[in-house]
Amino acid sequence: MEDGSGDASTRWSISRPSAAAPLAAAGSMSIRAVLDRVFSSLDGSGPLPVLSLGSGDPTASACFRPPPEAEDAVVDALRSRKHNGYSPTVGVLPARRAIASYLSSDLPYQLSPDDIYLTAGCCQAIDVMISVLAQPGSNILLPKPGFPLYEARTTFSNLEARHFNLIPDHGWEADLESVEALADENTVAMVIVNPSNPCGSVYSYDHLAKIAETARKLGIVIIADEVYDHLAFGDKPFIPMGVFADIVPVITLGSISKRWLVPGWRLGWIAMCDRNDVLKKAKVDKLIEDYINITSDPATFIQGAVPQIISNTKEDYFNKILNLLRTSADLCYGKIKETRGITCPHKPEGSMFVMVKLDLSCLDGIQDDLDFCCRLAKEKSVIVLPGSALGMKDWIRITFAMDVPTLENALERIKSFCQRHAKLEA
Amino acid sequence: MEDGSGDASTRWSISRPSAAAPLAAAGSMSIRAVLDRVFSSLDGSGPLPVLSLGSGDPTASACFRPPPEAEDAVVDALRSRKHNGYSPTVGVLPARRAIASYLSSDLPYQLSPDDIYLTAGCCQAIDVMISVLAQPGSNILLPKPGFPLYEARTTFSNLEARHFNLIPDHGWEADLESVEALADENTVAMVIVNPSNPCGSVYSYDHLAKIAETARKLGIVIIADEVYDHLAFGDKPFIPMGVFADIVPVITLGSISKRWLVPGWRLGWIAMCDRNDVLKKAKVDKLIEDYINITSDPATFIQGAVPQIISNTKEDYFNKILNLLRTSADLCYGKIKETRGITCPHKPEGSMFVMVKLDLSCLDGIQDDLDFCCRLAKEKSVIVLPGSALGMKDWIRITFAMDVPTLENALERIKSFCQRHAKLEA
Ligand SMILES: Cc1ncc(COP(=O)(O)O)c(C=O)c1O
Ligand SMILES: Cc1ncc(COP(=O)(O)O)c(C=O)c1O
Repeated sequence: MEDGSGDASTRWSISRPSAAAPLAAAGSMSIRAVLDRVFSSLDGSGPLPVLSLGSGDPTASACFRPPPEAEDAVVDALRSRKHNGYSPTVGVLPARRAIASYLSSDLPYQLSPDDIYLTAGCCQAIDVMISVLAQPGSNILLPKPGFPLYEARTTFSNLEARHFNLIPDHGWEADLESVEALADENTVAMVIVNPSNPCGSVYSYDHLAKIAETARKLGIVIIADEVYDHLAFGDKPFIPMGVFADIVPVITLGSISKRWLVPGWRLGWIAMCDRNDVLKKAKVDKLIEDYINITSDPATFIQGAVPQIISNTKEDYFNKILNLLRTSADLCYGKIKETRGITCPHKPEGSMFVMVKLDLSCLDGIQDDLDFCCRLAKEKSVIVLPGSALGMKDWIRITFAMDVPTLENALERIKSFCQRHAKLEA
Repeated sequence: MEDGSGDASTRWSISRPSAAAPLAAAGSMSIRAVLDRVFSSLDGSGPLPVLSLGSGDPTASACFRPPPEAEDAVVDALRSRKHNGYSPTVGVLPARRAIASYLSSDLPYQLSPDDIYLTAGCCQAIDVMISVLAQPGSNILLPKPGFPLYEARTTFSNLEARHFNLIPDHGWEADLESVEALADENTVAMVIVNPSNPCGSVYSYDHLAKIAETARKLGIVIIADEVYDHLAFGDKPFIPMGVFADIVPVITLGSISKRWLVPGWRLGWIAMCDRNDVLKKAKVDKLIEDYINITSDPATFIQGAVPQIISNTKEDYFNKILNLLRTSADLCYGKIKETRGITCPHKPEGSMFVMVKLDLSCLDGIQDDLDFCCRLAKEKSVIVLPGSALGMKDWIRITFAMDVPTLENALERIKSFCQRHAKLEA
């Protein structure tokens, strides 16, 4: 066997300049990629243990543990030996039925199991919908700040992203005038995330109704990312966008990742709230099937466990988690208020996140949000997400879903970091 | 709330003619889509129970059950509560390490955990590699017959597929002359599947060496789909393509789906056998990371179970499965031999499949392979896969991984079907 390395006559065609720019661009947009940069600023020899308020994964804290009933359901499904084989492309029927009825309990009509497609987490639901909607020349309206996977998949699929603002001083409501200004006849859909990552907001019935009317007027479909469904601990209840499906076709995306605190289980869904058969007429259902035919499914035995996961988890469990989130959100909001150099325009009332504005005029020598985050990592071993990863330069996103002592410790470190870098008052 | 259905002023932009042709084309290529057509020919009111020799999922037969050790490993990983969160994009380190060492035991060198990327089954490994390699103007060489997901993903990614023949009378070896004739400076890779779906062949060391030399000469990378690794029950042992990685860069794709009989668990991998750093220099590793950053991962607790799944499964288990497959393959080959109208050019020696040629000149009024399969379904309630789904018109693929009584029954029905449709001899 010869060694090919020294053989100049072999030109590997794979090593020619790659045209994979959209892929590289898409990949570098992910929260993970940005957090990796922040993590790499950590001072490994520092005395402080690392505290991460960076990602939306609370499972590191023992108090944010999945319900034992859910764990049992998965073990039972596995031990039954009925779920070792491939599942149907669209997902196993009992799981689709259970999700249809779970979602319908908050809707004025019944979804059918046929309206539900199982996906490997809400991430894959996003992948599917963007891939299905992407057509040459089309565009999609995305919220700013938003969840970067939408940008990444849009870039990868050569779909044009146009951004409408969420207004911090109006409870992060969508700026519907900018939505109207952005849309044209090539706009296929608008995305809303409610409860919101990264804003921590929960939309009122009235605002959702206005979004629906706007979309209807523009003739665009709504993709409602409700992966944080029911994680509303403020005054406003969670209302699914599907409530307005008589006005506008709604494609709801969700998963068990957040409410059941099992992001690693990779079980999500797409729900077609298509009261007027607009999506069916456009064959969106068929295109979803075509696409999921050529992608990988969630593990079959986890699908098999879904009916029990949903029916066996007790209301008490959900209430306990909501109480924990409320306490953490209050703590977080209070601490930020007493920290000079950062402000929080809207008290979080849902999801696990809050957007915090940097006041760089008060902070000496900090250039921007990435600089803030990298220095905070280096000096205080605290990880937060730079807002520029979400389209919001000079903001940061803090995840507060964490046990109270750790959160308190991390927020104290942020405060001391800001004090240390405070500009001397004139 | 008004009803939008009657409102002529609302034109939903989603309902304009869709340009999603590549997606629809890709989706309709899947084995599932073709089998659905065959299944729809079943006579629901018929007296015979349906026997499916159509898909590559033997888990319906009780004798093809996963090793209890693997099931225990997954339960332990779940119960440990350490694997409920998101995993790193590339997969958890202990699993990558275990797979690196599992694969290395058949190689003359050691793979590092960094060479391994975990995927949601081998399906996602295919998705990743095709997406990463797809560049405008590039092409890839695929075997014919082949596994249709390669075609589907290639179509979806706008990569050009060129097909080289596998030669039935030469043990389904690759026609390397046609490989040379097809390749040009835009060819990025060639795919081989060994042990072979759909052919049931296992390649010799000599043939693999020739493939490696051919690829080296052409300057193209080899994608070695070894999802059926070690499922070799004939005379030839399974030899991984990675053995030849000093000659040519090899990207090995695999999963636990087949050898451990758990296709529903969705755990696979990409292994870079890149002895001369050709792939690294072309930043293929970086592009894989970029892509998997924006896709969904396998369930974390299944990743967490991989080290135990690999180390705890006993040799006895694998031997038992090989014996079952050998018995079934022999039975299948024997029965086909005694059936007029179908022939099998090569006795299966690996995987779970055999390709069978239809002799339409002996079969009255059967138009082609799809017609054969649909009528067989209708008249005998037996499902087999039309060869045209694999690029082989007027062939069929039979899955023999099944308990003996069921297989015997199904093969008897095929025989009686062929007898019934036999042309009267002149
Ligand atoms: C808005 C939003 N959508 C989708 C997802 C992905 O959810 P999953 O873990 O179910 O894939 C997340 C995860 O953080 C999210 O914040
Ligand atoms: C050749 C080949 N590659 C890949 C796959 C997909 O394997 P997995 O179930 O691990 O996704 C299959 C499944 O049948 C196959 O036959």
